[in-house]
Amino acid sequence: MVQSGSKLHEVALKKLNDRGVELEEIAELVYDLQSPYLTELSVDLCLENVKAVIRKREVQNAILTGIELDVLTEQGKLSSPLQEIIEEDESLYGIDEILALSIVNVYGSIGFTNYGFLDKTKPKLIKRLDDHTHSKQTHTFLDDIVGAIAAAAASRLAHDNPGISKIMK
Amino acid sequence: MVQSGSKLHEVALKKLNDRGVELEEIAELVYDLQSPYLTELSVDLCLENVKAVIRKREVQNAILTGIELDVLTEQGKLSSPLQEIIEEDESLYGIDEILALSIVNVYGSIGFTNYGFLDKTKPKLIKRLDDHTHSKQTHTFLDDIVGAIAAAAASRLAHDNPGISKIMK
Amino acid sequence: MVQSGSKLHEVALKKLNDRGVELEEIAELVYDLQSPYLTELSVDLCLENVKAVIRKREVQNAILTGIELDVLTEQGKLSSPLQEIIEEDESLYGIDEILALSIVNVYGSIGFTNYGFLDKTKPKLIKRLDDHTHSKQTHTFLDDIVGAIAAAAASRLAHDNPGISKIMK
Amino acid sequence: MVQSGSKLHEVALKKLNDRGVELEEIAELVYDLQSPYLTELSVDLCLENVKAVIRKREVQNAILTGIELDVLTEQGKLSSPLQEIIEEDESLYGIDEILALSIVNVYGSIGFTNYGFLDKTKPKLIKRLDDHTHSKQTHTFLDDIVGAIAAAAASRLAHDNPGISKIMK
Repeated sequence: MVQSGSKLHEVALKKLNDRGVELEEIAELVYDLQSPYLTELSVDLCLENVKAVIRKREVQNAILTGIELDVLTEQGKLSSPLQEIIEEDESLYGIDEILALSIVNVYGSIGFTNYGFLDKTKPKLIKRLDDHTHSKQTHTFLDDIVGAIAAAAASRLAHDNPGISKIMK
Repeated sequence: MVQSGSKLHEVALKKLNDRGVELEEIAELVYDLQSPYLTELSVDLCLENVKAVIRKREVQNAILTGIELDVLTEQGKLSSPLQEIIEEDESLYGIDEILALSIVNVYGSIGFTNYGFLDKTKPKLIKRLDDHTHSKQTHTFLDDIVGAIAAAAASRLAHDNPGISKIMK
Repeated sequence: MVQSGSKLHEVALKKLNDRGVELEEIAELVYDLQSPYLTELSVDLCLENVKAVIRKREVQNAILTGIELDVLTEQGKLSSPLQEIIEEDESLYGIDEILALSIVNVYGSIGFTNYGFLDKTKPKLIKRLDDHTHSKQTHTFLDDIVGAIAAAAASRLAHDNPGISKIMK
Repeated sequence: MVQSGSKLHEVALKKLNDRGVELEEIAELVYDLQSPYLTELSVDLCLENVKAVIRKREVQNAILTGIELDVLTEQGKLSSPLQEIIEEDESLYGIDEILALSIVNVYGSIGFTNYGFLDKTKPKLIKRLDDHTHSKQTHTFLDDIVGAIAAAAASRLAHDNPGISKIMK
């Protein structure tokens, strides 16, 4: 039997919240990405688009799987050397990017650019998730997931406002 | 610190073996895919190409991560509903395909076709891994990983034998 | 200025038609893929899903670009050696698969399998498009595009019918 | 018959050169990306890695196809509306990103981040290629291709220097 979409949706939202992510913070990332191009953009509209992205099953699957791996790593439950690789967010491990890409892809290839930009510059929420060397927390997957949700929401916004030709890319 | 390539390689080989996969069986899948196009193809040459695929770090990362999720699922250690989703190899869960794609991509897009074909027709080894409803085993990720390694090895073979224009696709 | 979605949609439909593709034929491919799993499936429902796939801008962009390259190749207007590569649907040229993947991705990774299967077994319409060695026609991109649309429509159908757990993969 | 690798390689290099791209400029992009992490990095080493990326057939195919579309657009030879879409580098057209991704993928998912960053911030060479509103030149595909080659070269460099754990991501 397949899990109901509404159940998955609810769990995905709860997991993000449990890991310290507010959707409003993701919306803010979207706002910063798109406000240079859309004069009437509001954080509320960004939030709506973030919520729409998280209603997609593909996105929910990536959220659940990525956070599960982060949590199991924090609990020291993975076998070596995967435990150490994820713990240290090792630079040559690309499975977190792969999962992120499955989120970005839902609204098409125009989102790659924004995802990469967020992952490289690590603004705000992403910085906070990534800055955990002093703590026992692992966010190896979560910071990529959050950046991918923001990038996908920006793409969705662009698709809904085709009149603004400079919206991204 | 980044894990040494040779350590990762060794672990990836051991994990495949622990989960009941012989590289010779993957080589056989490659042979069946490519022998119609390459008259002088041997299973040994296929095996060499399978081994070369597994020497790639991107492939090792996918093997380690996928098998870890399979094993943790068998042990009942994932949280619900991800536990049930992977246990039942749920049809709308696509993260196993996403991981497989990261393997196929290493030798380029010409491998997608063979991966999809193997995943759909489930010959030999893949059938055996997939046929586990009676048992307590979970191979949700492993069957896709094995198909992806075979498809990547077939691509590698094709790239090394460009003279045989009908080799795939 | 960005092209209006309805204009792009109309052109994409016309181009498919000009190149000899009936949407009903794509629907038939979807029906053959999914009828083993969905007892009440009709070709009409498949056709509806094919049409929904083609309403996506990402899909329209792939259709327009792929068919343009096929047509320019038929007219001998590409520079060498790209002209010969596309003319002969060369086995190591993977850009047609890349474009196809951008279509499949719109409904998530569960569609890779069906795309690969269609591309390898070449049933019905895809066979007809691929069988053009005797003619002057080039369908290097079109056969992949058609397979990708069918695979994406099958994914969409699966997402809308989550109760049928064996629908694909 | 399949084109020989050396022929394709030579054509790809010539096309880049014809379109005003010096490999040294791509190497400079790589240097700027990686020098914060690799104290002994030289532009020469970056150049070597750029050259290695361009020796891959998958990359050559993307270069040839993308530049062909740029050139045909400059000559006004595409049909409408694709002609206008590529001419204006329309924001919702993602096929240029799709082609770029096929280049980045050759060295794995860790390159997505650098590609997205370059595509968003448009430093140096990429800025120059993108700044052509005053001229008759079309570089819709080329700027993405160049960014993708730089990102792939940075990934290759990282894979060859696993000791430097902060090299990217």
